[in-house]
Amino acid sequence: MRLPPERFPGESGLPLSLNTATIKRATLAEAARLAAEHGIEGIGPWRDVVEAAGGAKAARALLDGYGLTVTSLCRGGFFTDADPGARAGALADNRRAIEEAAILGTRELVLVAGGVPAGSKDLRSAREAVSAALEELVPHARRWGVRLAIEPLHPMFCADRAVVSTLGQALDLAAPFEAADVGVVVDTYHVWWDPGLFPQIERAGREGRISAYQVCDWLVPLPADTLLGRGHVGDGRIGFAPITTAVTGAGYTGYVEVEIFNQEIWDADPAATVATVVERYRRYIG
Amino acid sequence: MRLPPERFPGESGLPLSLNTATIKRATLAEAARLAAEHGIEGIGPWRDVVEAAGGAKAARALLDGYGLTVTSLCRGGFFTDADPGARAGALADNRRAIEEAAILGTRELVLVAGGVPAGSKDLRSAREAVSAALEELVPHARRWGVRLAIEPLHPMFCADRAVVSTLGQALDLAAPFEAADVGVVVDTYHVWWDPGLFPQIERAGREGRISAYQVCDWLVPLPADTLLGRGHVGDGRIGFAPITTAVTGAGYTGYVEVEIFNQEIWDADPAATVATVVERYRRYIG
Repeated sequence: MRLPPERFPGESGLPLSLNTATIKRATLAEAARLAAEHGIEGIGPWRDVVEAAGGAKAARALLDGYGLTVTSLCRGGFFTDADPGARAGALADNRRAIEEAAILGTRELVLVAGGVPAGSKDLRSAREAVSAALEELVPHARRWGVRLAIEPLHPMFCADRAVVSTLGQALDLAAPFEAADVGVVVDTYHVWWDPGLFPQIERAGREGRISAYQVCDWLVPLPADTLLGRGHVGDGRIGFAPITTAVTGAGYTGYVEVEIFNQEIWDADPAATVATVVERYRRYIG
Repeated sequence: MRLPPERFPGESGLPLSLNTATIKRATLAEAARLAAEHGIEGIGPWRDVVEAAGGAKAARALLDGYGLTVTSLCRGGFFTDADPGARAGALADNRRAIEEAAILGTRELVLVAGGVPAGSKDLRSAREAVSAALEELVPHARRWGVRLAIEPLHPMFCADRAVVSTLGQALDLAAPFEAADVGVVVDTYHVWWDPGLFPQIERAGREGRISAYQVCDWLVPLPADTLLGRGHVGDGRIGFAPITTAVTGAGYTGYVEVEIFNQEIWDADPAATVATVVERYRRYIG
């Protein structure tokens, strides 16, 4: 495991990483340049920008040129389709994602579980399908030195996006596997409301399973598309200090990845967005 | 406690109640007439329609005329405003709601906790304010023979409406009080996603705290206003059979209250809506 860089250590001691979804319309080259210009040493790319940059090898070369550490790859998952063909397709795609993560030089492949399939009302089966998919993917991930990082999504996405809804549930799903093979993502937007959050962060740390710490804020009111209700750190109702303290207290020493889905931020100048990301990181996290 | 009526016993054995929010533009008199015409023997009124009907005494006389049992009163709560004046006002309003519930002849006053106050990022303090408010209200509720029924709301409402987000959390809040004084509401829309749901329903039953069982479905996609993303039972992704089985298995013998917030349903003919409520109840719950 690489040591975290020394820049922006701040109070939490956690270095900053820029998730490319935050500046969605930037290419990987632009994102890398902006990160480097702002002294950010970590980057969390999405697969689509990696592909647009010529694939994982080309992307790795590009990011190495800026001295950037790849902190995670977003994303694999979507395991809950009951149709056997769709399921096989999803597993094949996840195997490719594992290989891409390895080539990019990150251990952490972020997984979004998938929702309750259209036409189904069977949440339990959808959740069982996630366990089964992990079972199938772990050997391939291990071979490539990649960890499957289960991201619990906010329960409002349970029906259509991710049947993994809490950190505790993600840890229960991870439990049958080695901590080196299956981890969990702590994303403030998805978990901040959870009355069981702090003991589960402590547990995640104790089990050595915190793959990534992602941050953005919860805006009020939510916009029409709830997927885009995320704001810059500090613009919403989330108290970051207690969550960051819990994450570092649990022994996490990786990066803080800023991942924001928000149409207004996507429409803004990416350079201005990155400047705000750094400023908010310094004020609320660092 | 009244015995549940014999009509619509269905498979679950739970009788049906119509929450007035489902036919929002109907007066209490219209709602009562429609319920009676459709053989529904329970009604769950909101305070605004009670007030529009001339207050709790007049409403009680009206509902008695149709032989309707009042299954709950919606709603009190909103305890999290940090301003002392606003807080005192909320408590006074809740005392009035307790009295109205008693006069209407229901033991169950549904409480929505309130969100993280504007300008605050302190979820923990907001949650503590809910405990403190229960402490202050229980003696008044007991005097009137009314139970404070804490309704956990879906976590997507944590910021702006209810910091009580899971059934387990509601039960923890209720724990310091007698089961006759503080109960919990199980509403499928709010709790269906919860990986800990079934053990917590079992616990709620064991502790004698299930004040109400409310049902409606989770639509995909959610509409722009997430408050209105509720559908008729059967129109969304919720599997009602396992939840209803858990609720009855936990010893609950009260009513199934159908409460739907949905602009399209509100715009529909209330008689057609009530007919659909009965049909779906028979197919999915009864």
